[in-house]
Amino acid sequence: MDENSILIVGSIALDTIKTPFGEKKEILGGSAVYAGLSASFYKKNVNLLGVVGSDFPQKHIKFLESYGINTEGIEKQQGKTFRWDGYYEYDMNQAHTVKTKLNVLATFNPKLLPRHKACKYVFLANFDPDLQLEVLSQLKDPKIVAVDTMDYWIKNKRKSLHKIVKAADVILMNDSEIRQFMETPNIPIAARRLIELGAKSVIVKKGEHGALFFTESTHFSAPSYPQEFFRDPTGAGDSFAGGFIGYLAKTGDLSQENFKKSIIIGSVMASFNVEDFSVERLKTLKHKEIVKRFEMIRRFSEFEPLSISNWM
Amino acid sequence: MDENSILIVGSIALDTIKTPFGEKKEILGGSAVYAGLSASFYKKNVNLLGVVGSDFPQKHIKFLESYGINTEGIEKQQGKTFRWDGYYEYDMNQAHTVKTKLNVLATFNPKLLPRHKACKYVFLANFDPDLQLEVLSQLKDPKIVAVDTMDYWIKNKRKSLHKIVKAADVILMNDSEIRQFMETPNIPIAARRLIELGAKSVIVKKGEHGALFFTESTHFSAPSYPQEFFRDPTGAGDSFAGGFIGYLAKTGDLSQENFKKSIIIGSVMASFNVEDFSVERLKTLKHKEIVKRFEMIRRFSEFEPLSISNWM
Repeated sequence: MDENSILIVGSIALDTIKTPFGEKKEILGGSAVYAGLSASFYKKNVNLLGVVGSDFPQKHIKFLESYGINTEGIEKQQGKTFRWDGYYEYDMNQAHTVKTKLNVLATFNPKLLPRHKACKYVFLANFDPDLQLEVLSQLKDPKIVAVDTMDYWIKNKRKSLHKIVKAADVILMNDSEIRQFMETPNIPIAARRLIELGAKSVIVKKGEHGALFFTESTHFSAPSYPQEFFRDPTGAGDSFAGGFIGYLAKTGDLSQENFKKSIIIGSVMASFNVEDFSVERLKTLKHKEIVKRFEMIRRFSEFEPLSISNWM
Repeated sequence: MDENSILIVGSIALDTIKTPFGEKKEILGGSAVYAGLSASFYKKNVNLLGVVGSDFPQKHIKFLESYGINTEGIEKQQGKTFRWDGYYEYDMNQAHTVKTKLNVLATFNPKLLPRHKACKYVFLANFDPDLQLEVLSQLKDPKIVAVDTMDYWIKNKRKSLHKIVKAADVILMNDSEIRQFMETPNIPIAARRLIELGAKSVIVKKGEHGALFFTESTHFSAPSYPQEFFRDPTGAGDSFAGGFIGYLAKTGDLSQENFKKSIIIGSVMASFNVEDFSVERLKTLKHKEIVKRFEMIRRFSEFEPLSISNWM
C-alpha cells in the first residue's frame, strides 16, 4: 500500500442544477466525487468512501475507476441515491436549494476497510460531525486530516464540531460559516478564536475572493484566479479540498511553504471545476493546464519589496 | 514647484459616526482630508482643493498644514460645512446614512489656482463627474489622474462617467459599484468591459478582501491585511487612494511593478486608517510602521513556484 494514500469520505449525489448558463438533470455530484476526482490528479488509488442507492448508474462508478480511484468503499444500499436539486441566480455566490432528498445518505454510516484505516491523507467532506469523529477515531496513523463542515452542523451540533476542531489538522470553512461559528463578522478574529479552541490550522474559503490560511504562528492570503468563465459553482469547495489534500499527499511535504502551494493548487482545481457543470471540466483537464494556471496566479499576486531610502 | 506635485480634490466634512466601537460627533472627515493626509506621508506640499463653511474650525486647517499640506485651495464659503451622519452595524462592510447635509458642498465648483493646474499626480475623489471632467480639462500636463466615483453617479450621470472612464488614467471603484456600472456580478468581466470602454486601468477596492488591478494586458490581486483591530471604516477608500497616488508621486515610477507596490501602499494606509475614528490613527502613524505592514502583507501572500517533475 502507498505510503501517502488518500481517503476521502463524503456524499455521492445525483444533482439537478440550474444556473444562468443552463440546466442539468441528475448529473454526477456529491462532495466525495468532486474531492476524489480533484485529488486523483495528484495521486493514484484515491480511496472514496460513500454510499449510493440501487439506482446509481454503474457508468459513474466505472468513470471514477477510470481515474484510478478505488471504489471499494462505495457502499451500495437498497433505495435511492442522495439527490440535491438547486439553482443559482445571476450572482452565483449563493446556492438555493429546491429540494434535498437524503435517501440512502440518511442512514449512511461509513464503514472503513483496513485499506481506509491505513490512509495517511484524509479529507472528511461535510457530513454529520459525530460520524466524522467516528471515522477519525478509526484512522491508524494519519498524517493530515482535513475536515469540512456547513452551517447546518454549526446550528445543530456545535459541541461535536468543537471536538472536530480539536481533532483535525485542517479545518475548512467558508467565510460565512466561520463568521457564524465564531460569532464575529471579522474573519481574522474568527480564525484566531478557532485556533484558541484548539484548531491546528484553518482554511477560510472565500469563493471569488480567494482563500485565507491561519495557524497559530502564520498567515497566508491566497488570491483567486480572475474567473471570467463560470458556469456552475457546485463542488468548488470540494474540488479545492481534493486538490489541496492531493497535492500534500503527492509531495509528502508538510512544511508551511508546501501548505501554501497546496492551497493554491486547491484554488486552481476549484477554478477549473466551476467552468462547467458536474465534473465535465475535470474530464478534459490536463496537467499542463494546472501548472499554467498555478503560475498565472503566482504572477498575478507577486510584488516587489519596498525600497525606500529617504521618506521625504 | 515640485516636479511630482500632488493635487487632491474632494470633500471636507464634519462627520457624526457611530460604530460598534463608539460614537463621535462632528469629527474631521471628507474624502479630500483622508486622501490628502494619507498622501502627505509620501510627499510634502500635497495640494488640497475643497470647500468648507464659515463654521469650519480653523484648528483643522492648521492640523492639515502641520502635515505639510497646502490649503490654499480650501475655499471658505458663507454657510455650513458639509456634514455626514452615519452608522455601521456589527458587520462594518456597509455604511448606513442617517442624514447627509451637503451645505456649501452643494454649490462647490473647484477653482484651480495655477499651482493646482501644474500638478502631475492627481486624485479626484468621488464628486459630480461633470465637475471631475471640468477639473481634468484644466490640468496642464498631468502624469497620472486617478478618479473615484460612487453608485449615485452610476445611476444618475452614466454618460459623464463614461467620459471620465476614458479621460482618467486610473479608475477606482469598489466591487459593488463596478458590478452595478458594468451590469455583471463577475468582477473580472466588469473590469474587462470597463477597459473596452476606454479605461486605461481599473482598481477594484474590495475592503476586507483586498483590491484588484486590471489593465488591458496585466492583472494584479492585492491581498488585504488581516485586520483584527477595526473601529471605523470611514475614509478607507480615500486613504487607499491617497497612499496610492502619494507613493506613485514620491517614486515618479510609472512601471507596472511600481503600480503594484503603490496599490499595496494604498492598502496599508487604509488598514491603519480603519483602526480608529476620523484621522486619529494617521496622527500617530510612523513611517517604520508603514514599512513593517507592507512587508507583512508581502510575507502573507508569497508562495513558491510549482516544481513538479513527474505527475504520478
